[in-house]
Amino acid sequence: MAQRKRRNCRIVFEPSGLKTEVPPGATILEAARLAGVYLTSICGGDGYCGKCKVVVNSGETESPPTTLLAPQEVRESIVLACQTRVLSDLTITVPRSHVLDTGRIVVDSDAHRFSELPGEDIGEGAFPYEPLVQKLSLRMSPPTEQDQVADHERLYMAIREASHVPLLQTGYRILLQLPALLHEAQYQVTAIVAHRGGVAEVVDIEPGDTSRCNYAVVVDVGTTTVVAHLVDLATATTVDAEATYNSQMHFGDDYIRRIIYAEQHDAFGEMQRRIVHDVNDLIQTLAVRQGIELSCIASVACAGNTAMTHFLLNLDPRRIRRTPYIPTAAWIPPIRAAEAGIRINKRGLLYVLPAVGAYVGSDIVAGVLATRLYEAPGLSLFIDIGTNGEVVLGSKEWMVCASSSAGPAFEGSGVKHGMRAAPGAIERVTVTAEGGMTFHTIGGERPRGLCGTGLLDVLAALLELGVIDRTGRFALPDDPRLADGSDGLEFTLVPAEAGHNPIVITQADIANLIRSKAGVYAAIQVLLESTGTRPEQLQSIFVAGGFGNYLDVRKAIAIGMLPDIPTDRIHFVGNTSIAGAKMAVMSRDALAKAEQIADRMTYFDLMNHPNYMDAFMQANFLPHTDLARFPSVRQRLAPADGPTERTNE
Amino acid sequence: MAQRKRRNCRIVFEPSGLKTEVPPGATILEAARLAGVYLTSICGGDGYCGKCKVVVNSGETESPPTTLLAPQEVRESIVLACQTRVLSDLTITVPRSHVLDTGRIVVDSDAHRFSELPGEDIGEGAFPYEPLVQKLSLRMSPPTEQDQVADHERLYMAIREASHVPLLQTGYRILLQLPALLHEAQYQVTAIVAHRGGVAEVVDIEPGDTSRCNYAVVVDVGTTTVVAHLVDLATATTVDAEATYNSQMHFGDDYIRRIIYAEQHDAFGEMQRRIVHDVNDLIQTLAVRQGIELSCIASVACAGNTAMTHFLLNLDPRRIRRTPYIPTAAWIPPIRAAEAGIRINKRGLLYVLPAVGAYVGSDIVAGVLATRLYEAPGLSLFIDIGTNGEVVLGSKEWMVCASSSAGPAFEGSGVKHGMRAAPGAIERVTVTAEGGMTFHTIGGERPRGLCGTGLLDVLAALLELGVIDRTGRFALPDDPRLADGSDGLEFTLVPAEAGHNPIVITQADIANLIRSKAGVYAAIQVLLESTGTRPEQLQSIFVAGGFGNYLDVRKAIAIGMLPDIPTDRIHFVGNTSIAGAKMAVMSRDALAKAEQIADRMTYFDLMNHPNYMDAFMQANFLPHTDLARFPSVRQRLAPADGPTERTNE
Repeated sequence: MAQRKRRNCRIVFEPSGLKTEVPPGATILEAARLAGVYLTSICGGDGYCGKCKVVVNSGETESPPTTLLAPQEVRESIVLACQTRVLSDLTITVPRSHVLDTGRIVVDSDAHRFSELPGEDIGEGAFPYEPLVQKLSLRMSPPTEQDQVADHERLYMAIREASHVPLLQTGYRILLQLPALLHEAQYQVTAIVAHRGGVAEVVDIEPGDTSRCNYAVVVDVGTTTVVAHLVDLATATTVDAEATYNSQMHFGDDYIRRIIYAEQHDAFGEMQRRIVHDVNDLIQTLAVRQGIELSCIASVACAGNTAMTHFLLNLDPRRIRRTPYIPTAAWIPPIRAAEAGIRINKRGLLYVLPAVGAYVGSDIVAGVLATRLYEAPGLSLFIDIGTNGEVVLGSKEWMVCASSSAGPAFEGSGVKHGMRAAPGAIERVTVTAEGGMTFHTIGGERPRGLCGTGLLDVLAALLELGVIDRTGRFALPDDPRLADGSDGLEFTLVPAEAGHNPIVITQADIANLIRSKAGVYAAIQVLLESTGTRPEQLQSIFVAGGFGNYLDVRKAIAIGMLPDIPTDRIHFVGNTSIAGAKMAVMSRDALAKAEQIADRMTYFDLMNHPNYMDAFMQANFLPHTDLARFPSVRQRLAPADGPTERTNE
Repeated sequence: MAQRKRRNCRIVFEPSGLKTEVPPGATILEAARLAGVYLTSICGGDGYCGKCKVVVNSGETESPPTTLLAPQEVRESIVLACQTRVLSDLTITVPRSHVLDTGRIVVDSDAHRFSELPGEDIGEGAFPYEPLVQKLSLRMSPPTEQDQVADHERLYMAIREASHVPLLQTGYRILLQLPALLHEAQYQVTAIVAHRGGVAEVVDIEPGDTSRCNYAVVVDVGTTTVVAHLVDLATATTVDAEATYNSQMHFGDDYIRRIIYAEQHDAFGEMQRRIVHDVNDLIQTLAVRQGIELSCIASVACAGNTAMTHFLLNLDPRRIRRTPYIPTAAWIPPIRAAEAGIRINKRGLLYVLPAVGAYVGSDIVAGVLATRLYEAPGLSLFIDIGTNGEVVLGSKEWMVCASSSAGPAFEGSGVKHGMRAAPGAIERVTVTAEGGMTFHTIGGERPRGLCGTGLLDVLAALLELGVIDRTGRFALPDDPRLADGSDGLEFTLVPAEAGHNPIVITQADIANLIRSKAGVYAAIQVLLESTGTRPEQLQSIFVAGGFGNYLDVRKAIAIGMLPDIPTDRIHFVGNTSIAGAKMAVMSRDALAKAEQIADRMTYFDLMNHPNYMDAFMQANFLPHTDLARFPSVRQRLAPADGPTERTNE
């Protein structure tokens, strides 16, 4: 007999009210994705991170047993969304802290951060304002018997008159349309001219004057977060910004795991679809919010680590994680954005900034460009702390770089109450005279978790208060704020309140954070020592990354993440991946400079460096085994140092 | 009941012995194409030219009645191949004279003609041997942990090492395939690198060393005939050549009529399909004959008049015939050949040489390039006699050009027994002491018709013998060779023989030829007079065109086609459209030079020139109304001049 078609199940997600339908047997995580509800999931749906907890209010589900849920949670109908299959219509409540946030915050914070960049002054600074994609309004005289220049050459002459362009190219498609288009527009048209290397391509011709409608999107394609800025090229201003989590996170926290996943599941296409979808979502959001047509966006410039840019373009990333550790392309030529599935003007271009190699991506090159490290007479250090910790040391004379797999702890991942810099994130922690802590959240909201700077501050505060010792272990077993939680020992930062879970930091969180900072510091140490540089020679340290709005550099020194140099030489420069890509999109000279920078940087492979592992082990203390490296910290630690030292003995 | 599958019919063509199979109902012409037997067919299979006669030796066929076969021919089992359907296995005899000679003749003749070109010495002469499309064999070392250059940059480095290339571009498609391809080929690959302006594009990568397999096809896209040469770029030699009629001829003799037809019937697409089909046929024939794969042909360079290049690329040609008389593009950027439907390597490029404007096409620019007129210290005249007669006057100082619609008479079209320069074509006519004529045919075969030089010689001979007067009219009404034919008065050159029709020249043929030569001479006269140049100042006259192997310049002067200057300054240079395009395909510097030449040439619009019509009317005599312009002719005509002059009085 004919098979009866089973009815789809209706799933409602509270408190957002978003709905979807899925066939019975789908997981709640799949339903959430369809509904546009983004749940935190670090393990990518494999059921071992325990982040995707939701409450099933009504309806029938099926889940395998798991140790990731406490008996109390099971009683409260809490399930793991990725492991739970839908059997009927459901109403689900998603705890607010488990939704991935998207946020306005980025714009405000960037405005603040970029003010610290030494020269983000396109047009006035080193780089002339010459966008990669120009829209040139051309008012040509129609041909006459006295002026028999052909349409194509007439167009070229007008373009050359309107803008200094080097070699020009035109696609066949344009040529086919040209006569009718010019005739109908009475020779008043706008040429979209895109620069690729030394060549300018006429990518499209629009009737009339559309030159005011020329936008670029600049994207920082991060492993954990994807940030996009919308730039109005007619006025050279950033008009909006938006961020989201990289939805590849379902397939692993770091890009190495994602490459492995893609290899094992033949999922490179899926990886690309995910990240392209994220980028398209950001672009769509920006365009809708600003009321502009996608056809007005004629360029996208991306920077990111090399694996991410490979995923974005579906270039083979497999040898990034395997010998000989090379990318398919460190320099990716501009392509039509549509070829990669990115939805802007159909003929618009996608530019990817150049990378140094497999482990030092275009985000770092963008950072060196944005901070002007490449032209500084004195030595500087550039540190980008994201899912990985990349470090550049150099000046206008030479540049060396390295990458440590710091892990995404400071991006809030792998930390129980970690979150990204969004409203409600604790971004600053102050130790009170009474030995307590006060918390400052983004937007002044009730604390929901800790962003990068908050985590860094907590670590410093716990150390300062003696709650943890220099190995990071909890040192005051009788402290009432210390308890045995589901993930082992945890310290309560913000106690539970009616309807709100407490915010805690676990022993495992602290170990993760220390490993992250140790990776960064060890990389710095190896570069300094390998080049015979003493920390005091550093004229500047630029710290980039998605920490939040604010970084207390004294605390970064206190925990041993940054070398102990005068704090006025340390600059928190925010998202320089975006800043550098923005410079490139606004000035082809800046892009050319980025190519030179990528070319000039010498890569140090830390994994094969004889001193790295030792340096890393030494840095796995707060601040370091060798306190002589941190004289200012030693001084401050002195009173509290006794007991900490004792614990170690 | 099930339909019985009808067996294919086996067709054998004698004397070649070539075989094929076709389904019943196919035409013999289709079978011939499949078998690789190229039959003469001017009408393209429409059954009205009567050129594709074959003998059916055995087997069953079906044909409609036709007036194109004499009763005797029908009795001899002669049929029109294009109109005759195959009903069974057949044995067919193809009369040798009806096979489209696949032109070794062209190659030989070109070898002969090009020897007159002042500098066709690519590699040794002014232009270095740097083909537009290079195949570079790259033997790269695979990446190691000590050499972590990415695949894309590794490729670029290897290309730059193998060849001096300026800016490089790569398509997205190449990038996607690159890692797997390099890996499988163990980093031993061949890069196909195409030059476009100042940029080199990596158009494809092939595993192993395929650099020996790099061919270019050079095409002269004429209004009446299309000629293609196959060039082996690995050895810089022309290996074969082939020609065919332009099958657009169904839509009109000249390109203006074809534009009108296409406009009226919305047939621009059809026009393109026709000419692209012709070019593809030539390429296919050359490739099959030389046993090379189409994938080994990575470039096609075309020259032709501007309307033809527009038809070829389906660019709008309508304003070529209408005010303001401009093309869509005088300079057409290189495109992928496949985009225009031309079948070579899928990623191969189509280059079109630059034109001056609507009426002076890239064939003329190619001619100026090939003759080196552009760099000569003294003044030269370049004359290309095809369907139109274009004239260039100039030196390294300046160049002017003009076009007269001469008509295709000297290409054999519009002339009853005209044909192209193929075996059996009368190419030379000598007046005997007895007042008769002897004929020299290409290949020494029985005369089948007259090619351009034969027509020119006949005209001169008829004038010399007094058969025609200086207006071109038959002057000896009692001559037994003169008769009233189906097309009016005609003069028998070669009498009928068993199985062979006579070869005649009609009054209308002569009028056509005189109009053609008058158009050319008038254009020369206007350019000379407008620039204040006296004929004796000309250091050289280069005569180009598809006349045949040989041009008797004295006869060209005798009929008043060329100015009367010492004959040792007049050079018959053959098909310079092919010669110039070949120089371009072998040297990017030559193509760049062609662009400069197109830029430098000043166009004279004869239609709007006050003196042209008078000059044309004066030149409508043999040699001219003003005999003072032709002192050498006046001298020779003197004895015979009497009666001719009398007729006119």
